[in-house]
Amino acid sequence: MTEQSITQGEERDYDEYRVIQDLGGWRRSHTCNQLTAADIGSEVTLMGWVQFRRDHGGLIFIDLRDREGLTQCVFSPEVAPEAHERAHAIRVEYVVALKGVVRARPEGMANPGMATGEVEIYANEWKLLNTSDTPPFPIEDRVDAAEMLRLKYRYLDLRRPRLAKNFILRNKAAQAARRYLDSLGFLEIETPVLTKSTPEGARDFLVPSRLSQGMFYALPQSPQIFKQLLMVAGLDRYFQIVKCFRDEDLRADRQPEFTQIDIEMSFPDEEQIMGMAEGLVRTLFKETIGAALPEAFPRMTYRQAMDEYGSDKPDIRFELKLVDVKDIFAGGGFKVFAAAPCLKALRVAGGLELSRKEIDDYTEFVKIYGAQGLAWIKVKEDGEWQSPIVKFFSEDEKKALAERLGMQNGDIVFFQAAPEDVANAALGNLRLKLGERFGLIDEKAFAPLWVTDFPLLEYDPEDKRWVAKHHPFTSPQPGQMETIASDPGGALARAYDLVLNGSEIGGGSIRIHTPAAQKAMFQALGIGDEEAEEKFGFLIEALKFGAPPHGGIAFGLDRIIMILTGAKSIRDVIAFPKTQKATCLMTEAPNVVGKKQLRELGIQLREKPAEAPAEQQKSEA
Amino acid sequence: MTEQSITQGEERDYDEYRVIQDLGGWRRSHTCNQLTAADIGSEVTLMGWVQFRRDHGGLIFIDLRDREGLTQCVFSPEVAPEAHERAHAIRVEYVVALKGVVRARPEGMANPGMATGEVEIYANEWKLLNTSDTPPFPIEDRVDAAEMLRLKYRYLDLRRPRLAKNFILRNKAAQAARRYLDSLGFLEIETPVLTKSTPEGARDFLVPSRLSQGMFYALPQSPQIFKQLLMVAGLDRYFQIVKCFRDEDLRADRQPEFTQIDIEMSFPDEEQIMGMAEGLVRTLFKETIGAALPEAFPRMTYRQAMDEYGSDKPDIRFELKLVDVKDIFAGGGFKVFAAAPCLKALRVAGGLELSRKEIDDYTEFVKIYGAQGLAWIKVKEDGEWQSPIVKFFSEDEKKALAERLGMQNGDIVFFQAAPEDVANAALGNLRLKLGERFGLIDEKAFAPLWVTDFPLLEYDPEDKRWVAKHHPFTSPQPGQMETIASDPGGALARAYDLVLNGSEIGGGSIRIHTPAAQKAMFQALGIGDEEAEEKFGFLIEALKFGAPPHGGIAFGLDRIIMILTGAKSIRDVIAFPKTQKATCLMTEAPNVVGKKQLRELGIQLREKPAEAPAEQQKSEA
Repeated sequence: MTEQSITQGEERDYDEYRVIQDLGGWRRSHTCNQLTAADIGSEVTLMGWVQFRRDHGGLIFIDLRDREGLTQCVFSPEVAPEAHERAHAIRVEYVVALKGVVRARPEGMANPGMATGEVEIYANEWKLLNTSDTPPFPIEDRVDAAEMLRLKYRYLDLRRPRLAKNFILRNKAAQAARRYLDSLGFLEIETPVLTKSTPEGARDFLVPSRLSQGMFYALPQSPQIFKQLLMVAGLDRYFQIVKCFRDEDLRADRQPEFTQIDIEMSFPDEEQIMGMAEGLVRTLFKETIGAALPEAFPRMTYRQAMDEYGSDKPDIRFELKLVDVKDIFAGGGFKVFAAAPCLKALRVAGGLELSRKEIDDYTEFVKIYGAQGLAWIKVKEDGEWQSPIVKFFSEDEKKALAERLGMQNGDIVFFQAAPEDVANAALGNLRLKLGERFGLIDEKAFAPLWVTDFPLLEYDPEDKRWVAKHHPFTSPQPGQMETIASDPGGALARAYDLVLNGSEIGGGSIRIHTPAAQKAMFQALGIGDEEAEEKFGFLIEALKFGAPPHGGIAFGLDRIIMILTGAKSIRDVIAFPKTQKATCLMTEAPNVVGKKQLRELGIQLREKPAEAPAEQQKSEA
Repeated sequence: MTEQSITQGEERDYDEYRVIQDLGGWRRSHTCNQLTAADIGSEVTLMGWVQFRRDHGGLIFIDLRDREGLTQCVFSPEVAPEAHERAHAIRVEYVVALKGVVRARPEGMANPGMATGEVEIYANEWKLLNTSDTPPFPIEDRVDAAEMLRLKYRYLDLRRPRLAKNFILRNKAAQAARRYLDSLGFLEIETPVLTKSTPEGARDFLVPSRLSQGMFYALPQSPQIFKQLLMVAGLDRYFQIVKCFRDEDLRADRQPEFTQIDIEMSFPDEEQIMGMAEGLVRTLFKETIGAALPEAFPRMTYRQAMDEYGSDKPDIRFELKLVDVKDIFAGGGFKVFAAAPCLKALRVAGGLELSRKEIDDYTEFVKIYGAQGLAWIKVKEDGEWQSPIVKFFSEDEKKALAERLGMQNGDIVFFQAAPEDVANAALGNLRLKLGERFGLIDEKAFAPLWVTDFPLLEYDPEDKRWVAKHHPFTSPQPGQMETIASDPGGALARAYDLVLNGSEIGGGSIRIHTPAAQKAMFQALGIGDEEAEEKFGFLIEALKFGAPPHGGIAFGLDRIIMILTGAKSIRDVIAFPKTQKATCLMTEAPNVVGKKQLRELGIQLREKPAEAPAEQQKSEA
């Protein structure tokens, strides 16, 4: 067998024109994950990619791969000399169709780790369906190629079984969600993608209109208003698995387009919506990974979540709660504690083992959340308190603290003396770090939690006004509409978030459904009649014509799939994701377009680059 | 009962704050289409809209409506005096919750045309959930309000049962499609909405990028390239029910955003794809309207369709075929016929009854398609030919014509002497008119038809070059790749369209899957290496790494739903449609946006309006 004869074999079959035109009537009989000892003796036709080729004892072995799995195939000069000779041309990632007979693997050669590990296929005939250049990185689950390269060759990255499995699961989850909602009478109704720019917080993506020059469509941040209008339309129960768009500066776990399971129903109360939502989430977990979630999800008020976990999305897979100790030090001698607007502590059993370096790292970590520093006390095995600050404590304070926290030998206690939001963010996030550090988190557990009784409004110190915590269509709780003007911070919303393992996976509310209440809400938000009319005119108008009581919820599908697959990155659950700069490295989108296209749309590029925001200019000056 | 007491009753209950906050624990026990004689005596809770109110014999009757249907409810001063008194406040489209007892309607008062027609509900208690201004048009199936008004108040138009039913059916169809495709191992995979502008015929909608200033995303005209890449990625079987976008000048049956059932599979032949597609369409018809389509759909070549029906989407619910008669008159004395590049005839049995006015109207009609006029012969009951042109025919020509067409007394025959495309368009469309005029079309029939063997390329006389008839990724038929350079017009594509009752509802092809064949195709289209690289670089690149043979099909879901529901307008099957000027009258999209938004995107409006195209300027000059 010379190099020349290999090339000839290749050329004879690698006539691309013939290949493209016809599979010659061949059809697959099985996938590459299907054949077992029960099939021994059968003649089969497989098609797939060459994962691997090995020449051994005069035979050529290949592992043929498809979406489902691998099958070992053998070319033998005794069984099929011509097929064997031509098989020398086969390289990794070539596309091959072969017919052969299923045989048992020789004694001791079975691979119990592989679904098809008991058998191998002896090829009688084969066709080369395509060649492949050497891939820029190997198609294997363990890959250390840079993510940039993998995103450029996304179609090769998707061949890795671990990634492909995410999309098999994602499909299963979406279909299960649809079946579940369909069975409850929810109609999937498509809402527009080309819609109106609405002032709902995040920045809109805009689409210039050609037929109405100077005007723009916006891509929806969510179908919120449309789903409310579908309730006004009497369609009763709506859902949609739908793309939403936000032109934000992207964080690691964000994408400019993302997918929601969006749900709305008429004549509901919170219990009905939460019950339906729990059923949906249970179905998703059951039907994709076989996990059984509890029949009734636990609930916690927003207040309790913030107090005990420093977060509105507590990871309740582990304890380790924040404890308010402000009263203990109030009026005491340690001014930093005594004067703090909020003083909270976090006691970690076994924390004595933390090194100075670790504590320094945590101190840096909490600064991300605005903390000035991180006070701590270690309780040595002999009971002595080791700490830079204990010397400022009185004996009473020490005693009260030890009692409040249940301090024991071997513990460490961290403190935050800061404004409440800073103390919560710093200790809440430190809590998560410590949960990992001390192995407190059961990685296999799924801990859903409803967070309820959110504030209706929150104060925006920049704009110096009250803004809606969820959105301005959220209903206040019974009896609180009257008080939002007098005590805006005290009003609670009929809103609920669903948190799972510390991620917010869904959130919703009962909506305002009468024009008078909606008007009162806008007033509380300082939105005048004219502004309300301009921004939400058609919704306000719709409420005048018999809007039913309604409410709903929306789930972040990408987030849920990440949890179900254990993916660390949102890019692992989106087929063609964008980078943090919102570009697609494969298609090179966005890209330049022709001047004619822009002219037709009545727009042009600004000659000067956009001005930097004012603050930035200042800090650079 | 005075007007005053009505108002008082209304005020007492119409405290919007109380209404919004709580349904007071009430939950619906049934829909408004559910109760029958079997429920007589039960206590029920219904919620819905007041369709109708009637006062009769001291009782107040209302028909309560929800998505499912109507139930008659009765307020009686004897049963519940307080509920009855307050019921005087009820108006049309008010939203009402009521508890009551199911009774049989009095003897002779049952309404057999109504699912709940045997019963009525005697209210014990009720709540006013919302009032309604008088709607701008009545909520009834028969509506003669202008469509502009109905689109502005879309949420009211959607309350009309006929329209609401379209969305109930649409949901059913989409879920049935998903179940069917899921059962065959197709994975629904989401492809990007923010993607790259591709030069595939129609105009793209563009989205300016903020993070990459001066660059634009495009909304996808179809996920064509992405689905091919998913096959390269080895995902084997893909589908998606997905929005697509085209910035075209809208015809009556077009929308700027529309929905496809998009499908692609690896290692297929045409038979597998067509078999899968037939199963899908049969499932859709069976599960939504219970119609049984044939087990195997008939097929026709493109050539035959054009020859006999003058159309690539023949409505085969009726015969009435075009007949080529060019050879009969070739070299004869009637120059108009003798010199015609194409001469076709259409014989209509019973056409003698057509009036002069009707024939004149048809003559105007065919001019839309470029015809110069419309020649005709009426065969009178005595066998005499009445026609302005017969005097130019020889006896042999007459005899041959009569024989070829099987002319009989009472017929009319229409002729087109014109270039082939004009003759086909004119007579093909006239055929449809005549099919209606003579009642030849069975309106209840569903006649699917595959049209196959399309030309691969067609000549664009404007650009003076060959262009892809479907798209440049379509594979030629076996043996024809070599000949596309020498005989571009003769090459046939591995493409197939599915036509139903004369509408194209789907189309697809086997794709090119090797780089060499794709390159040859681009050459045939006069697309140079550089242009191909720029426009399709990433697809060409992908084909180098082991692309499998693949092919697929896409269905127009909106069109299919129109056929299933009998809707005359695409706007009746899209929840929030746009006008022909691509505006949404309800939300007033597109709309102006702030200068700051544009500045952030690095764009500005053109100061001068877009220039008119060159030709237009000329014709105006």
